[in-house]
Amino acid sequence: MVDFQWIGKPVPRKDALIKATGSAKFTNDISLPNMLHGRILRSPYPHARLRNIDTDKARRLQGVKAVITAHDTPGEKYGVFPDSRDQYLLAMEKVRYIGDEVAAVAAIDEEIAQEALDLIEVDYEPLAPVFDPLEALKEGAPVIHEHASNNVSSEVLIEFGDIEKGFMNSSCIVEERFEVDGLSHCQLEPYTSLASYDRSSRKLSMWMPHQSPFTKQKGLSNTLKIPLENVRVLKSYIGGAFGGRSEVSPSDFCAALLSIQCGRPVRINYSREETFSVTRQKHPWLISIKVGSNEKGKLMAAKVRIIADGGAYLSTGPIAISVAHSNWESLYIVPNVSYKAVRAYTNNPIRGAMKGHGIQQLFFAFESMLDMLAERVGIDPLEIRIRNIVKEGAILNSGSRVTSCGVKDSLVKTSEASNFKEKWKKQSGNKGVGIACGSNISGFNMGFRSGSTAFLKFNEEGAATLFTGTTDNGQGNDNMMVQVAAEELGLTIDDITLISADTELTPIDPGSYSMSSTFVSANAVKASASHARKQLLELAAEELEANVLDLELKDKRVYVKGSPNIGIPIKKLIVKAYRKGEPVSGFGHFRPDINYKWDWTKKGRQQGQVTGAYTYGTAVAEVEVDLYTGEVKVLKVTTAQDCGFAINPQAVEGQIEGSVGFAVGQALSETLMMDNGQVMNANFIDYRIPVASDIPDIDSIIVESNDPNGPYGAKEAAEAVHPATIAAIANAIANATGVRPKALPITPEKMLKLLREKEAMDTENP
Amino acid sequence: MVDFQWIGKPVPRKDALIKATGSAKFTNDISLPNMLHGRILRSPYPHARLRNIDTDKARRLQGVKAVITAHDTPGEKYGVFPDSRDQYLLAMEKVRYIGDEVAAVAAIDEEIAQEALDLIEVDYEPLAPVFDPLEALKEGAPVIHEHASNNVSSEVLIEFGDIEKGFMNSSCIVEERFEVDGLSHCQLEPYTSLASYDRSSRKLSMWMPHQSPFTKQKGLSNTLKIPLENVRVLKSYIGGAFGGRSEVSPSDFCAALLSIQCGRPVRINYSREETFSVTRQKHPWLISIKVGSNEKGKLMAAKVRIIADGGAYLSTGPIAISVAHSNWESLYIVPNVSYKAVRAYTNNPIRGAMKGHGIQQLFFAFESMLDMLAERVGIDPLEIRIRNIVKEGAILNSGSRVTSCGVKDSLVKTSEASNFKEKWKKQSGNKGVGIACGSNISGFNMGFRSGSTAFLKFNEEGAATLFTGTTDNGQGNDNMMVQVAAEELGLTIDDITLISADTELTPIDPGSYSMSSTFVSANAVKASASHARKQLLELAAEELEANVLDLELKDKRVYVKGSPNIGIPIKKLIVKAYRKGEPVSGFGHFRPDINYKWDWTKKGRQQGQVTGAYTYGTAVAEVEVDLYTGEVKVLKVTTAQDCGFAINPQAVEGQIEGSVGFAVGQALSETLMMDNGQVMNANFIDYRIPVASDIPDIDSIIVESNDPNGPYGAKEAAEAVHPATIAAIANAIANATGVRPKALPITPEKMLKLLREKEAMDTENP
Repeated sequence: MVDFQWIGKPVPRKDALIKATGSAKFTNDISLPNMLHGRILRSPYPHARLRNIDTDKARRLQGVKAVITAHDTPGEKYGVFPDSRDQYLLAMEKVRYIGDEVAAVAAIDEEIAQEALDLIEVDYEPLAPVFDPLEALKEGAPVIHEHASNNVSSEVLIEFGDIEKGFMNSSCIVEERFEVDGLSHCQLEPYTSLASYDRSSRKLSMWMPHQSPFTKQKGLSNTLKIPLENVRVLKSYIGGAFGGRSEVSPSDFCAALLSIQCGRPVRINYSREETFSVTRQKHPWLISIKVGSNEKGKLMAAKVRIIADGGAYLSTGPIAISVAHSNWESLYIVPNVSYKAVRAYTNNPIRGAMKGHGIQQLFFAFESMLDMLAERVGIDPLEIRIRNIVKEGAILNSGSRVTSCGVKDSLVKTSEASNFKEKWKKQSGNKGVGIACGSNISGFNMGFRSGSTAFLKFNEEGAATLFTGTTDNGQGNDNMMVQVAAEELGLTIDDITLISADTELTPIDPGSYSMSSTFVSANAVKASASHARKQLLELAAEELEANVLDLELKDKRVYVKGSPNIGIPIKKLIVKAYRKGEPVSGFGHFRPDINYKWDWTKKGRQQGQVTGAYTYGTAVAEVEVDLYTGEVKVLKVTTAQDCGFAINPQAVEGQIEGSVGFAVGQALSETLMMDNGQVMNANFIDYRIPVASDIPDIDSIIVESNDPNGPYGAKEAAEAVHPATIAAIANAIANATGVRPKALPITPEKMLKLLREKEAMDTENP
Repeated sequence: MVDFQWIGKPVPRKDALIKATGSAKFTNDISLPNMLHGRILRSPYPHARLRNIDTDKARRLQGVKAVITAHDTPGEKYGVFPDSRDQYLLAMEKVRYIGDEVAAVAAIDEEIAQEALDLIEVDYEPLAPVFDPLEALKEGAPVIHEHASNNVSSEVLIEFGDIEKGFMNSSCIVEERFEVDGLSHCQLEPYTSLASYDRSSRKLSMWMPHQSPFTKQKGLSNTLKIPLENVRVLKSYIGGAFGGRSEVSPSDFCAALLSIQCGRPVRINYSREETFSVTRQKHPWLISIKVGSNEKGKLMAAKVRIIADGGAYLSTGPIAISVAHSNWESLYIVPNVSYKAVRAYTNNPIRGAMKGHGIQQLFFAFESMLDMLAERVGIDPLEIRIRNIVKEGAILNSGSRVTSCGVKDSLVKTSEASNFKEKWKKQSGNKGVGIACGSNISGFNMGFRSGSTAFLKFNEEGAATLFTGTTDNGQGNDNMMVQVAAEELGLTIDDITLISADTELTPIDPGSYSMSSTFVSANAVKASASHARKQLLELAAEELEANVLDLELKDKRVYVKGSPNIGIPIKKLIVKAYRKGEPVSGFGHFRPDINYKWDWTKKGRQQGQVTGAYTYGTAVAEVEVDLYTGEVKVLKVTTAQDCGFAINPQAVEGQIEGSVGFAVGQALSETLMMDNGQVMNANFIDYRIPVASDIPDIDSIIVESNDPNGPYGAKEAAEAVHPATIAAIANAIANATGVRPKALPITPEKMLKLLREKEAMDTENP
């Protein structure tokens, strides 16, 4: 075991103080001289033709500096996928959901901007809307986009083996339908965009909460037709992302276009209501699933059919309906698979990326099915999982290799720690226990941006500045990068100044997407620090007349192993290198070996490595169901996450606890209540995220499978337990009550209905 | 001849537009949220004991947020030389000149800050002052600093050969006394310091006009006792430096200390009067000089004695009195030398570094002597110079090697272009022509900071971001760096974004000191770009199946020489490298081979290489003297500057014109008028810098000696003609009138006095 100084330790967050004292600057805290305030006019109709927009009165209002409509935009569509862009910067001809952007205003304060919006006269011709995806897919349904007369926004079919034969060879088959509601990310920081366009240099600077400054930069450059190098996205603190800050937002465009028009900075702050209604949401899914196994519970075949409600535009829809398969195949071996998903356009708000994308939906369904199958086969839920899980070294259906796998460890450790076997089916009336697994990836194929580069420079006192493009959305990435650099360089974390997430200053990086920060970005930081470390050791070897291999780098000194008195401070080596004219600097990059080509449009079997490393987790949930109110209380969750290696165990535990919190809310209470395209609960009173008293006791177990390619063996750190916990809660409810929830969230109303149905059935068929 | 795209061309300045339109942000244009305004209380006495400071009333004034005195400082002295610091951050016990900093205030606006200063009650006990350096050096003079009872602030003696023998072997000896007044830099931007201290991170950010962010950072860290990495000096546009922005300024400390005390940003703007009176000034010199030659005008010996009025503190005094020798020895071969300079403390304002340091003073004297000697020997001024000038490859008295030398070229070209020989002594009554030479260095020994590092990264469109620590004071360094990078990379200057002069973001660099930017910093930029260029060529060679040597990099493409159709865009290579996981980046450094050890305190002969490259220049000035008013009009100046190679001829010509402008002012009108320690002309009405109508026709000839170590052969670009022009004007006046000016500036009053004395002498001795 290597004697680490900074990694593997619960190092407190460097940003803790400034966040706790309120001095961390989030986008909304940044005020620029002469800054204007922007607001966006939104469609009140779910579907309508835009006949005319009259902005004259708004323009004449004192204090209004600019009003823009579609005519002030470059006029092209934008979207995540270059070949299927379907959304105008501001609505052109039609609006497609309640909240669609129609115009925007910049004024000297927010009140005047709002007043100006009220003065804009829009002539709408309402069109027949469609909100139910099943209705939308029927012939004769209102057509939302010209290019998709059937309202299919995207579709995917993935097949392996022979599904018919698979079921023929199955002695045991279960088939069910599941339903999962739409969700909001509920980041505590509402969305905000600040744009500052400098007319002389023709450069646009932007601040906003984001998951990668580089993808924002590229999106802005493409849509605004500004050369990439003239768009700079800078760092600000970010109050949560959870997948919801990956795409370019209309407020980004609007702030930019208004700033370009006025030559003054413009900030647009979304209200909480806007943050709920017009940013991206999680896709509601209908899942029909059929699973077959042999008599020993060995999985033989699985057929999955999904209909997803995509809302008004494409967004990341193709990924949302595909990525679940990649995770699922990495967890259980199923030789014969048919997975088909259709995403419908509707006149609901736009559904895009959210923590887990489609994973929770599929895993909720599949992990429920596993329990049902186990019961049919006559084995317990732990056993059926152990019989089917993937093992290290496995080659998956996609062709991906599993380089490290701690799923068995996590199953064993959580079931032991929670006494799962004893508790399962042996608890008093309304208490139950459930187990489920999850998996995730550590970065995926983002083309040339799949890799990360990092750079390090030193000052004459031996302190370093580290440049990395990665973003910290609140999860602690910044601290991780500093820990890694300090470890490699024998410095303290206070000796490392971090410059991050700035398109101008920092080298390219995939961003905080798809769980790549640890595996990809921290690996690049490690490489850059190792590069500098090597130089320091060589300089010291010369100075101390020692062999590089006999030297150690620690406590800001290089010294001879075993003879700590024979050494030299790092700052002396740095200055020595300066004098030689060969300054110590660190330059390093890392690109995972992934080559899986996502093919969103064509049907077929993609082959290739999906991710640098898969991660695994298990959750055991213990619940108590109030049989009279239908209320479910999660008493305890025992989780184990295989994160490869915990660079910061405190941060990993924090992330696990966050995932469990998300899971509790998504399992039991969170839902976007819709009424004819209108979000009815766009606030934290009616949209019920869990509060402190809803959070169960959490036992977080860290499983370290030491991935051969991760930095110190590390990979993604807490996402696998998120779907696992949701499914474990559902399984625990079934265990407690004998009724199986098939729709998320499992609200008291739904639970009560299930219990009453069961009661009626039991009475009818005693 | 290489076919350059960007270098060697008159590329317009990228900052021209924003400077012309007023949108370039100088320090005074930067407003931070919650910013306070600071003012400094200054001593009205030239010399006094500080008995008490009562700040109570000031503190109680509404709107005042902080008041600081010496007790709020770390209490140690600061100064350029670690072993002879003589100035407190705020006056402690004594004040030593009119303007000495006593206290500082931060308030919500400048008026309240000024009102608060008026409320501070200071109890002074006036002490006898001394203003004349000759008086100050006498026994019994008032002692200004305890550590220097003789008021000698520094002293230098440099001797080579045998001075006595040298004069014994001289057939012709001239001896004279010269006098040069104190000067102000007259930067158009008054000094301003903006400090923003962040209490949570304990980091101090500062903006100010400076010549190097790194020396400011180091000075602030040392004096304020803040770890180096917690002091960040950022870039702002700079409205001229001319050597006057090299040291840490009391307003830097005061703004920082006030910001630390308030936890709010504090900006201190100096008034024009303060900029004249309390920033550094050019040393007034008294020079006694004796020069001997053989009968052919070959120089045999030179004895130089200098007394410099250093004012109240040491500042860069030791350099000011030494560096002139280094330049002088690089221009003319004098085998036997005795050079001694004494710098006195007086109760005048502080004298420090200014464009040329002591060079103009010495060259004015020596170039005048050369003309006198030529007359005595019976040769013309051109001839005596040609007989004594240094040649390429020469090893100087100091041991320095002259790697390139265009002085003969510059003498020949200017004299030919101006018809010097015909005009000299052959013009009508009151017109005259004079010739003189100058030399300068291209960077000098700044210890470990003598070298520069640069770094380059690319975005996916093939555009680059260049990181360099060097500063642009207005001379065009930023443009030069961009030109060099564009040239090496086959990109356009618009493809290069420059990040410069920021201690946090940019690698170490000597700064814009001692003419090092072209020779040192641009060399580092070239090295970093070449590093990236090599990678691009290798990638292209692979792609085009060609040999690297057969490839050309131009117009954003790499193509086969002679077959421009066979090529590949750079952006494709950049993306290819990203995909390979080995991104193209540039990393390079340059450190000139200089090892001369300046020894400011000990007498003796220092040996070693003084600079990376010497530069040379010649000026021929044509003047007309109004015999009735004494007014001198400079009609034309023909200059030639050996800049090695003109990276941007337009910029070089601009710099030459700037040097000529300086020279005209310093020769004829500029002087700091002092009265008992008080600057009497601290404004642009009474301190007469040349206006447009004072500027002569300027013929700028660029001599390219192609230094073997300079970037593309380049070195310092316009400083050599500055002292040359001053001396040429003086020589032209002597040529026109027959009287020799021996005191600068040659005001109408002084000229008239000389003419009247001559008239009287001529009348007495017909």
